[in-house]
Amino acid sequence: MQSWIEDIHARARTRLGQGRVASYIPALAQQDPERLGIAVSTNAGELYTAGDAETPFSIQSIAKVLLLTLALRTHGETLWQRVGLNPSGMPFNSLAQLEAEQGKPRNPFINAGAIVVTDRLVSAFATPPKHLQDVARRLSGNASILIDDRVLASEWQHRSRNAAAAYLMKAFGNLDNEVDEVLHTYFSCCALAMSCIDLAVALNFLAADGHARAMGERFVSPGLTRRINAIMTTCGMYDAAGDFAYRVGLPAKSGVGGGIVAVVPGRMTICAWSPALDGNGNSVAAQHALELFAEELAPLGVSMPLR
Amino acid sequence: MQSWIEDIHARARTRLGQGRVASYIPALAQQDPERLGIAVSTNAGELYTAGDAETPFSIQSIAKVLLLTLALRTHGETLWQRVGLNPSGMPFNSLAQLEAEQGKPRNPFINAGAIVVTDRLVSAFATPPKHLQDVARRLSGNASILIDDRVLASEWQHRSRNAAAAYLMKAFGNLDNEVDEVLHTYFSCCALAMSCIDLAVALNFLAADGHARAMGERFVSPGLTRRINAIMTTCGMYDAAGDFAYRVGLPAKSGVGGGIVAVVPGRMTICAWSPALDGNGNSVAAQHALELFAEELAPLGVSMPLR
Amino acid sequence: MQSWIEDIHARARTRLGQGRVASYIPALAQQDPERLGIAVSTNAGELYTAGDAETPFSIQSIAKVLLLTLALRTHGETLWQRVGLNPSGMPFNSLAQLEAEQGKPRNPFINAGAIVVTDRLVSAFATPPKHLQDVARRLSGNASILIDDRVLASEWQHRSRNAAAAYLMKAFGNLDNEVDEVLHTYFSCCALAMSCIDLAVALNFLAADGHARAMGERFVSPGLTRRINAIMTTCGMYDAAGDFAYRVGLPAKSGVGGGIVAVVPGRMTICAWSPALDGNGNSVAAQHALELFAEELAPLGVSMPLR
Amino acid sequence: MQSWIEDIHARARTRLGQGRVASYIPALAQQDPERLGIAVSTNAGELYTAGDAETPFSIQSIAKVLLLTLALRTHGETLWQRVGLNPSGMPFNSLAQLEAEQGKPRNPFINAGAIVVTDRLVSAFATPPKHLQDVARRLSGNASILIDDRVLASEWQHRSRNAAAAYLMKAFGNLDNEVDEVLHTYFSCCALAMSCIDLAVALNFLAADGHARAMGERFVSPGLTRRINAIMTTCGMYDAAGDFAYRVGLPAKSGVGGGIVAVVPGRMTICAWSPALDGNGNSVAAQHALELFAEELAPLGVSMPLR
Repeated sequence: MQSWIEDIHARARTRLGQGRVASYIPALAQQDPERLGIAVSTNAGELYTAGDAETPFSIQSIAKVLLLTLALRTHGETLWQRVGLNPSGMPFNSLAQLEAEQGKPRNPFINAGAIVVTDRLVSAFATPPKHLQDVARRLSGNASILIDDRVLASEWQHRSRNAAAAYLMKAFGNLDNEVDEVLHTYFSCCALAMSCIDLAVALNFLAADGHARAMGERFVSPGLTRRINAIMTTCGMYDAAGDFAYRVGLPAKSGVGGGIVAVVPGRMTICAWSPALDGNGNSVAAQHALELFAEELAPLGVSMPLR
Repeated sequence: MQSWIEDIHARARTRLGQGRVASYIPALAQQDPERLGIAVSTNAGELYTAGDAETPFSIQSIAKVLLLTLALRTHGETLWQRVGLNPSGMPFNSLAQLEAEQGKPRNPFINAGAIVVTDRLVSAFATPPKHLQDVARRLSGNASILIDDRVLASEWQHRSRNAAAAYLMKAFGNLDNEVDEVLHTYFSCCALAMSCIDLAVALNFLAADGHARAMGERFVSPGLTRRINAIMTTCGMYDAAGDFAYRVGLPAKSGVGGGIVAVVPGRMTICAWSPALDGNGNSVAAQHALELFAEELAPLGVSMPLR
Repeated sequence: MQSWIEDIHARARTRLGQGRVASYIPALAQQDPERLGIAVSTNAGELYTAGDAETPFSIQSIAKVLLLTLALRTHGETLWQRVGLNPSGMPFNSLAQLEAEQGKPRNPFINAGAIVVTDRLVSAFATPPKHLQDVARRLSGNASILIDDRVLASEWQHRSRNAAAAYLMKAFGNLDNEVDEVLHTYFSCCALAMSCIDLAVALNFLAADGHARAMGERFVSPGLTRRINAIMTTCGMYDAAGDFAYRVGLPAKSGVGGGIVAVVPGRMTICAWSPALDGNGNSVAAQHALELFAEELAPLGVSMPLR
Repeated sequence: MQSWIEDIHARARTRLGQGRVASYIPALAQQDPERLGIAVSTNAGELYTAGDAETPFSIQSIAKVLLLTLALRTHGETLWQRVGLNPSGMPFNSLAQLEAEQGKPRNPFINAGAIVVTDRLVSAFATPPKHLQDVARRLSGNASILIDDRVLASEWQHRSRNAAAAYLMKAFGNLDNEVDEVLHTYFSCCALAMSCIDLAVALNFLAADGHARAMGERFVSPGLTRRINAIMTTCGMYDAAGDFAYRVGLPAKSGVGGGIVAVVPGRMTICAWSPALDGNGNSVAAQHALELFAEELAPLGVSMPLR
């Protein structure tokens, strides 16, 4: 398996040079587009890596999986009164749909949805950013994970569009806390710096019926795990969820930091990272790595969702 | 398994009385809301049924799976130049998105998308409606399957909204043939009258890596099968694809005639039918049957997509 | 006044070469962009002309003023149950707004609105196209006015977008007659070939409290005249009604044939024509002629709306 | 004329009891729906009043006329790089259109447009709210005009929707100053408490070719006056500009405080006020007073725009 991951890494490297690093905040624009890391964390506890698998990067929208999981733990199915769970069909930061649908975001993986989810956590925890950092450390077993203050400050400075969405939801009564506090918490979680290894391990509970190995305990129920995987399948890849399901067929979530985490239920998680993005905001090389991974998984006899 | 299906049927019957029969065309409005049928067709060739499994009903949007499969067979991946494969996030007959996106429908399972797909078949076959009926007969092994002329006439008479979508696509150059001929072919396929047994058998190739048992041959490649299943997962249940993936977790396609077909890749297909629909246009009792089916499948050790 | 009009003509000629002739139908694409005509018809019966004032051109959307006037004559204020009278803020052929507002067009000067208005006339008259041609002849006092069959045939062949709007309204129950007949009548009226003189004289009733001089009788009431002028002011210049009110300040209606008719209530009508259009579909040189006309009207002591 | 205004007042009183007082902020919800005031200020300096003409009320969106006038004075035609001047066709606080058009509001009389206009004033003046209060005092000749701090605080507390619009424009780079400061200035101007007399006198410059009698000087040029009147005609009555032009035919601007100011160019201004609003946010009784006023103006030989 190690050589297989290395082979995928070598083939995915051919895509380096394609796409563009996210530039909407200066802190992300400085990333090196030549980096490519892969980490696989199996349910049995093995770890396979290739390339820059230990380099921390800004997890950005992958944070939405953490936020959703925590909010479902604290609020259960009542969360769905605040946010939908169907694909949006609109860009991830669109306000038109949010306005037409009375401030209820389509799903928890568009920005507005994640902000509402964060609002629930702000209501539930004393110091939400610290709590999120703590959860990330415990799930990954890496106590040195930090919120990147430079990224956080940059997000805050360029918060206008997210602030517009948050105030619009506030206007519709779908945000209980102050916009500024909710955004600060949301940006803090997006600014977590984690490596491919950190993420593959931390989200392995999605492949392992909810069991978080690094914590040595069940983090969520098997049913909840399946449901989060379902939302990742239909809504996890920005506007390209359908394309990705068609080509790769695994539940996945990507972030504009260049990371993508995918789940092989019952078997393993994989995290690939490379900063240059395609027009949908998904990493070009990381997507290709996942495509190669999925192609070869089936003949190995691994049962895959949608394949 | 037979008693299991019968048990699901009995429990799903409790939902009869909920929802409303489709009323947009008179021919459908006269259906009996008390009917409920279930048929399971396994890859091994077994058939299990309960209730009204032999009663032909109007397959309506389930036809979109047939149309898509045939168009992918004749045109291959070039089909995606005409139609997208991402969820639409809009009602299945919305024109706003179609206009904003220059006449290219979001996916082949919204009406506009199926009309474009039909246009490709009109270009490819001499007598498209007859060809579609013939394919339905061969896939299901039932030579008596017919296009219901009364439903077809009713669809034609109430074609205004579909005609609006078709002319809009024609205006953008995304329809090669005359609107009237394309609509006639599209309505003919939707007006096919098939039973739960017919549909479960006919679409079993989606569970069997493309092998169509009734035809005794491979109908499509395994890769194509997986891709069609992926589109069913992300776009198959009208506006409720996300909800359905969250609750049931199987690739599925429903029609306003009250039928829903779902796929357990590698194992079987199931078709449930009951005419009364929820607000999204999906059969209330048939959905519930599939939910019960999925819940009990997992503990039986059946590997399921997203579960 | 004659020399004044000639001076305006000379100055407006400097804009020839700017803009582009309408190309959506071949019949219009062949117009000579170097033509420029102006005609002024005063309430006292004088006629002042310059340039190509006698050349017939396709009146296109200017027909919407005729259609609206006739429909208000036959149906009175009940017409407003079918069509609104507020600006649309969307391109003149947008379907998104029409869909969002349940098939009721924003105003009678967008295409969908004029099609609904035409539907009212199809219900009211035995041979609507002939009736419209007859009215144009009587209002202008020119018995040789004709519907241009070549333009009509070209409109029909490229009817897809208008057909989409018509079918969408039909789907919402806002069209009583068959789409094909309504469109044919609508295109016939748009295909009327009239000169600047014909149009300035024909629409002089809008400046003369409803009195149609060429007919020798009151065509509509003074109140109705004021109301039609109000709609021309807020909705007459496609998406640029506000710009035009800001710069020119007269009720006006333009057509993609390059003609624009403006009204100086109580005094006169002016028609300017030149085929090359700006991005909003309004003639560049004709607009400039009207701007010069309005600028010099005020100091002459002429009381002008909005000036 | 005095008895004529009194007669209009008496007839418009019959509409009291219709409509509802604005309730989006508590401070406005407490207004007495039975109040009705009218004031006419002629270019000759006469003042005619009836009913509650001296009671100060919250001018709300009528402030947009003041803001626009000041911004055109300070920035001239370059203002139009920031805001359009065409009707929006959408509710006055819609974000969808603002998003689709890259953060450039349709016109200065929707909220987003007035916020951009305010941003220009924040850049131009040291203490913008004080400056606006000062201009209102000088234009009306009433040195006791105040910003209502209770209304201002209430607007600020319920700022979410306007904040959403402001942040969206900020995201598109169309706001130079901080959102909080711009909103505070905007709300301050909306919270000016002025009477019918104050407003009729203050805006009389729009009827008098730009001459502000109370200031004893020309406030803006005649051309600018005509242009502001043109925008009031096409965009001044929220979503009902077309209806109002059709029924009344005068440039006008209304506010949710229940006031409406209308202009008879070359002759006079009229301000009517009554707190209960129709579904478009325009005062029911004040609108009716203006309708009666316009109906009787024409036969008196007064030349009216659009009539």
